[in-house]
Amino acid sequence: MEEPIQIGLLGLGTVGGGVFKLLQSNGQEIALKLGRPLEIKRILVRDVTRPRSVNVNPELLTTDPLAILKDPEIDIVVEVMGGLEPAREYVLEALRQGKSVVTANKDLLALHGKELFAAAEATGRDLLFEASVGGGIPIIHSLKECLAGNRISQVMGIVNGTTNYILTKMSQEGRPFAEVLAEAQRLGYAEPDPTSDIEGDDAARKMAILASIAFGTRITYPQVYHEGISQLHPQDIKYAARLGYAIKLLGIAREEEGMVEVRVHPALVPLEHPLAIVQGAFNAIFVEGDAVGQAMFYGQGAGEMPTASAVVGDIMEAARNLIHGTTGRLSCTCLAHKPVKPIWDIETRYYLRMIVKDRPGVLAAIAKVFGDRQVSLASVIQVGMVGEQAELVFITHKVREQNLREAVEIISGLPVVNQVASVIRVEGGPEQ
Amino acid sequence: MEEPIQIGLLGLGTVGGGVFKLLQSNGQEIALKLGRPLEIKRILVRDVTRPRSVNVNPELLTTDPLAILKDPEIDIVVEVMGGLEPAREYVLEALRQGKSVVTANKDLLALHGKELFAAAEATGRDLLFEASVGGGIPIIHSLKECLAGNRISQVMGIVNGTTNYILTKMSQEGRPFAEVLAEAQRLGYAEPDPTSDIEGDDAARKMAILASIAFGTRITYPQVYHEGISQLHPQDIKYAARLGYAIKLLGIAREEEGMVEVRVHPALVPLEHPLAIVQGAFNAIFVEGDAVGQAMFYGQGAGEMPTASAVVGDIMEAARNLIHGTTGRLSCTCLAHKPVKPIWDIETRYYLRMIVKDRPGVLAAIAKVFGDRQVSLASVIQVGMVGEQAELVFITHKVREQNLREAVEIISGLPVVNQVASVIRVEGGPEQ
Repeated sequence: MEEPIQIGLLGLGTVGGGVFKLLQSNGQEIALKLGRPLEIKRILVRDVTRPRSVNVNPELLTTDPLAILKDPEIDIVVEVMGGLEPAREYVLEALRQGKSVVTANKDLLALHGKELFAAAEATGRDLLFEASVGGGIPIIHSLKECLAGNRISQVMGIVNGTTNYILTKMSQEGRPFAEVLAEAQRLGYAEPDPTSDIEGDDAARKMAILASIAFGTRITYPQVYHEGISQLHPQDIKYAARLGYAIKLLGIAREEEGMVEVRVHPALVPLEHPLAIVQGAFNAIFVEGDAVGQAMFYGQGAGEMPTASAVVGDIMEAARNLIHGTTGRLSCTCLAHKPVKPIWDIETRYYLRMIVKDRPGVLAAIAKVFGDRQVSLASVIQVGMVGEQAELVFITHKVREQNLREAVEIISGLPVVNQVASVIRVEGGPEQ
Repeated sequence: MEEPIQIGLLGLGTVGGGVFKLLQSNGQEIALKLGRPLEIKRILVRDVTRPRSVNVNPELLTTDPLAILKDPEIDIVVEVMGGLEPAREYVLEALRQGKSVVTANKDLLALHGKELFAAAEATGRDLLFEASVGGGIPIIHSLKECLAGNRISQVMGIVNGTTNYILTKMSQEGRPFAEVLAEAQRLGYAEPDPTSDIEGDDAARKMAILASIAFGTRITYPQVYHEGISQLHPQDIKYAARLGYAIKLLGIAREEEGMVEVRVHPALVPLEHPLAIVQGAFNAIFVEGDAVGQAMFYGQGAGEMPTASAVVGDIMEAARNLIHGTTGRLSCTCLAHKPVKPIWDIETRYYLRMIVKDRPGVLAAIAKVFGDRQVSLASVIQVGMVGEQAELVFITHKVREQNLREAVEIISGLPVVNQVASVIRVEGGPEQ
């Protein structure tokens, strides 16, 4: 067996600890597969004295990033510290020093991808990031390599486990959002500050990465329209189920006529769609290509060991490329420049719930506004009474978002309408 | 743009035609991604005059395999003719001639994998075969690369679309096997001779390939125990549904304590298991690894364009390896020798349906035989009456297959038992 390939780990938190454990437990098999062992030479931490869940030789720990970035014996730098700075600076320096880099950092890639990939190309090294989306699910390699012969028309996914866990609980138990969130925080499924998950920021970053790869054009996080799930009412989940839909926080990326649309928001998904059955903290990414047709990738989208699985897969690829002298073999594929469609230009179907006065002519007044704005209705159901008022649910046919928004604004001002309580997009049905 | 990479196609049937079309329609994007165009130089066919669904220049066609295999300008040979001979001979000759080979041929790989990979290693060329299992689903690359850091404990899949289509129809419409098969044949979902699909041979070949990769040991088709679906009764599907299960033709490969088990047979799968919802001709492969946990890959497992998607993905990888001078980068990973467990040694749960005399003491007599053979019952349900006789359904706890078989033999001979009508394994539940 030849000399080991030396690895520097930036960070020893949840993911870093998982990577350390996995390289320990499966190191022999990995060495056999590669023909060379992998060895973690140094680990950057904030505090070397802090007690840790992994059994690591304290001599490996350092608080000095340069002890890793400038060490000529280190071949691969694994960035699992997260956040934008100093992660960005470290990754750039590692690439400049001629090291291959593996990262799990979606924040970084969704904002600074262009700069990072340019740095990797300048030195011909690998910058691999399978773990940045979907945890252990091999979606990035699949899009970049196995499905590379396809024109991808759509990537639609449940890419945030925390919100899917909360929605699953709300749906199964009919409980309100705030209560389920608090429980998820107690159980460790949601962060103490859950904003990035529940407001869709985390999912938007992942969709920026997926859309960039799927359509070969650079999409950054600020270009991704996103809404979260904090405004969802349990009764909408109940009514959706009655109509044959689940409500999921979906990331949607589509290309049509050279324009890209990419957005994250709650959506009604038909119960027979494969994404509708994704329960709890699982993630799933649904892909449509002109040759492959419909495909779906399902698994644990976060967590110590699933994420470590993806990181170690990337470390093995980077190692293989070093062994065969072929780093940079699969570099950035954002070769085109495709404009992003503004949210008001998208076309989809909508679910609306309204509280209206229970009197004759109300429906006619609402229907007229819809008609004037070319919003065509697929179904109208009176779902119940709220005191003296009626609760109406509408599902529209496909319509441009701007028309829908205008119609909703006018309807909200009608004297017979108390409130347009919910507007939720409908995705994944036969009309899309 | 540099010189094209030249491809020789062996076969222009369904898959070959799909590959031709896909390289035509998406050739520009593919060339952009690779930095070099791909060009089909020659196509081996049986009859150059036959009318074809693809619009191909007749000058490309040849009936002489050597016009491809011996052409020094051809870099990549794509074998999509199927069958064992002469495909085996052609693939070996192509590798000997220093060409990289892409094949969709599961029959060939499941029987002659060892010889073929040895030939590829001897000349350091690629032998890629993503299309041999699961059509367009990127399962082989995912197991070999992205999940390579895992110890895989289980691969469980619906890997034959024809049988899944038939089972879906039987389940949705309560119709008998023979009637649904005849309809599937009329609609082109089943072959005129459906034996290989319905008796599980096709799935067994795919499971041999998947097990070899997942566990790093060579498993060949004759080592895969298999049963088909032709003996399934609609009432078993009905009773399974009542008990919370779907019946699927499952391929199962597990490793436990250095022993591999690999088998194909109908199985009851809990309705909440992700494999249970796979409908129609779709395929899905469920994987469990020590780091990634549970993951599933879903898509169209056959057909012209989904299979072409996988073949073209492999062609692009072979081309990339040629461009970077790194062919043979990821060669055969069957490095271990793990014994295969005989079917009578497996342990699983069983569903049994019996027709018995409707009189006191029958259940006691049956239960005694089960008890003597350490078969422990999870549930017993009297599902109905057949004339004067009672129909009983049992579900067992986990038990060794040999014990179950012995018990069934003795029970079949009991004077109070008319018939043990069905014995079907139960998989994917919490006990497995």
